Amino acid sequence: MQVHEAARAAKEASYQLAALSAEQRNEALRGVQKALRAHAEHIFSENRLDLEAARAEQLAAPLLKRLKFDEAKLRDVLSGLDSLLALPDPLGRTQLARELTPGLNLYRITCPIGVIGVIFESRPDALVQIASLCIKSGNAVLLKGGREALRTNRALFAALEEGARDILPPGWATLLETREDVSDMLAQEGSIDLIIPRGSNAFVKYIMDHTAIPVMGHAEGLCHTYVDAAADTDMAVRVTVDAKTQALAVCNATETLLVHRNIADRFLPPCARALEERGVEIRGDAAVRAIIPCLLATDDDWATEYLDAILSIRIVDSVDEAIAHINRYGSHHTDAIITDDPQARDRFLSGVDSAGVYVNCSTRFADGYRYGFGAEVGISTGKLHARGPVGLEGLCTYKYHLIGSGQTVGDTVTGKIQYTHRDLKP
Amino acid sequence: MQVHEAARAAKEASYQLAALSAEQRNEALRGVQKALRAHAEHIFSENRLDLEAARAEQLAAPLLKRLKFDEAKLRDVLSGLDSLLALPDPLGRTQLARELTPGLNLYRITCPIGVIGVIFESRPDALVQIASLCIKSGNAVLLKGGREALRTNRALFAALEEGARDILPPGWATLLETREDVSDMLAQEGSIDLIIPRGSNAFVKYIMDHTAIPVMGHAEGLCHTYVDAAADTDMAVRVTVDAKTQALAVCNATETLLVHRNIADRFLPPCARALEERGVEIRGDAAVRAIIPCLLATDDDWATEYLDAILSIRIVDSVDEAIAHINRYGSHHTDAIITDDPQARDRFLSGVDSAGVYVNCSTRFADGYRYGFGAEVGISTGKLHARGPVGLEGLCTYKYHLIGSGQTVGDTVTGKIQYTHRDLKP
Repeated sequence: MQVHEAARAAKEASYQLAALSAEQRNEALRGVQKALRAHAEHIFSENRLDLEAARAEQLAAPLLKRLKFDEAKLRDVLSGLDSLLALPDPLGRTQLARELTPGLNLYRITCPIGVIGVIFESRPDALVQIASLCIKSGNAVLLKGGREALRTNRALFAALEEGARDILPPGWATLLETREDVSDMLAQEGSIDLIIPRGSNAFVKYIMDHTAIPVMGHAEGLCHTYVDAAADTDMAVRVTVDAKTQALAVCNATETLLVHRNIADRFLPPCARALEERGVEIRGDAAVRAIIPCLLATDDDWATEYLDAILSIRIVDSVDEAIAHINRYGSHHTDAIITDDPQARDRFLSGVDSAGVYVNCSTRFADGYRYGFGAEVGISTGKLHARGPVGLEGLCTYKYHLIGSGQTVGDTVTGKIQYTHRDLKP
Repeated sequence: MQVHEAARAAKEASYQLAALSAEQRNEALRGVQKALRAHAEHIFSENRLDLEAARAEQLAAPLLKRLKFDEAKLRDVLSGLDSLLALPDPLGRTQLARELTPGLNLYRITCPIGVIGVIFESRPDALVQIASLCIKSGNAVLLKGGREALRTNRALFAALEEGARDILPPGWATLLETREDVSDMLAQEGSIDLIIPRGSNAFVKYIMDHTAIPVMGHAEGLCHTYVDAAADTDMAVRVTVDAKTQALAVCNATETLLVHRNIADRFLPPCARALEERGVEIRGDAAVRAIIPCLLATDDDWATEYLDAILSIRIVDSVDEAIAHINRYGSHHTDAIITDDPQARDRFLSGVDSAGVYVNCSTRFADGYRYGFGAEVGISTGKLHARGPVGLEGLCTYKYHLIGSGQTVGDTVTGKIQYTHRDLKP
């Protein structure tokens, strides 16, 4: 099937999906669980073939680990589906209820976005996770996974289709397989409502530049931790070490540490020791190098997302200077302050223009699971629609229902009826 | 000042605006009211010069009417500001409050988007309306008005700046004047967060195609009214006449009427009479022409937003056929069903993929004032962020505050701390 036909079919399916009950959508999720269990052996054996091919192509060890889909991964996927089943229905919620004039009531009701196009990386479990979020939120979906996982993705997708077959309309999901498919998908602005790319910054930026369809994703994760003059030094060290080293190649790791001049003498030496024990290379400005030995940071460092065991450090004179640095060089993802000063804290919370602004904790908490969203389709650094970790809610929009009994605007002009704008109980 | 400097200054100002209290923002609005009153005579005389020039250029009468800014318009503007002052603060609202683990609490808090670029048509009162919505929602703004209103806009803008001078940070608003300014503005994706164009479809589409900045607007308003088999005929006629004729060149006027075959004989003759009395030209399909005399509608008619005294009419066999027609040819703006049948009504509400789905009332109600939003910056036919009439809420986003006491993700991995995900009272 051509991509434009698949997109058109998904659009048709989306209208039927929107009319399904929460119970029907949950039933489909249970069907998917059942089919995954039934076809587990086939999925594992296809995955072994993908792994063999990947090894032959000398794929790096971390990528091989992500590619692997075994008993343990299946257990995670099935338990993820359990969590999703337990979440309340995101659709049909009344966000606003208002009488416009007697007998004419306005309701704002959540509903699916429609058709989502998702391009994801090598992890095949992402396929099930994303498709199941779409089922729960009533969206049709076009999925494009990594080339290395092609056999595994096909096997998972077959199970997904089989499990949902009797409940979801045909065309609700399509697996795309080639790069050309992706280009074609980006041109379907008449049928696809939202593109969610998951991958490198360069890749996300490429997608954004090559489609008229709205894109939800993050182009970068350049996070900061700012250690204020009024910080607890021990806490600041512990949180900084976690924010930098708990995982390296992740978007919510801290890449630049800002330190208030008045605490630098006390804080930097123990912090540098703890970081160096964990193999972190430090690049500091001149003021930092006057306190601890390290490489010299250049302007480029402030603008670099290392995704590696490297941390840039800069000394600042005030919380305002820290805020200005973060807003200038950061990626509006997640930034933290370590402080016991309520004034510095409030200034930081209102001044930092990021999806997540944290006080006395690690930037690594920026994640849909950790936020209790059940699952996430990604983290948005855009400001419109969804910001930060995006779960089910980000896959929904709303529509206005206006329910009347023959009201006309002409009658409001003549004064025959008058606006009351009285809020109703939702 | 160059546009990129103005945009940069607006970005700087936006960080300060975000920290102002509701009372400070309201104080700025009261300052604007005072300055508009103080400079009323100057504004009127500048407007007379604009009007003279426009008459010399033989501007059409409706445009001249929109361009006029007199005592009456000023009264409207001042009372609009009163309404805005009375609205609750859209900022700092807690949308979600959740304990992630004891002592680590997540809050989702509304905040301004940042910098808004607005391009508006000839009505100079729109300048005050949009700028004041931005003040109330804490956003900085770049404003580009119509060329015909240049003198009036300058006078209004001077009053605006003077009225807010002591409260809002410098650079919070800039008036742009040339077409080149607009092109430059569209390239400031580093500083401007959202573009709101108001004007013709072609214009909005042009803007969308020429910027990497998110655009909120509607590309078209092709609205439908569907008269179901179970409609009250009298109500259907009244509502149809209002939806088509209460105003013509507006995005929420009905352009296509769909009629169920079983009611066509009873409904079409009186409806056609009422429409023709008001000078409406009817274009029907063959089945319509078998009942009433009219021009023949072609496929082009179903896809045309007339913005004029023309109505296309098509006979359908079911509510599903009506829904399919609307989703295929419509613009996802506002569509209505006239029916007394609860099943047809529910099917229509869930099946029609539009920002507004109405039952037994006129599509002309799709409007921010009529919805009780105080004012609107436009109507969005996009599905992300804001949908339908966009008021203050559409000019806001949110950020996540995560407030802890030294929590690390490492401690959740070792099990030293556990996720509770307990919802707190906001």
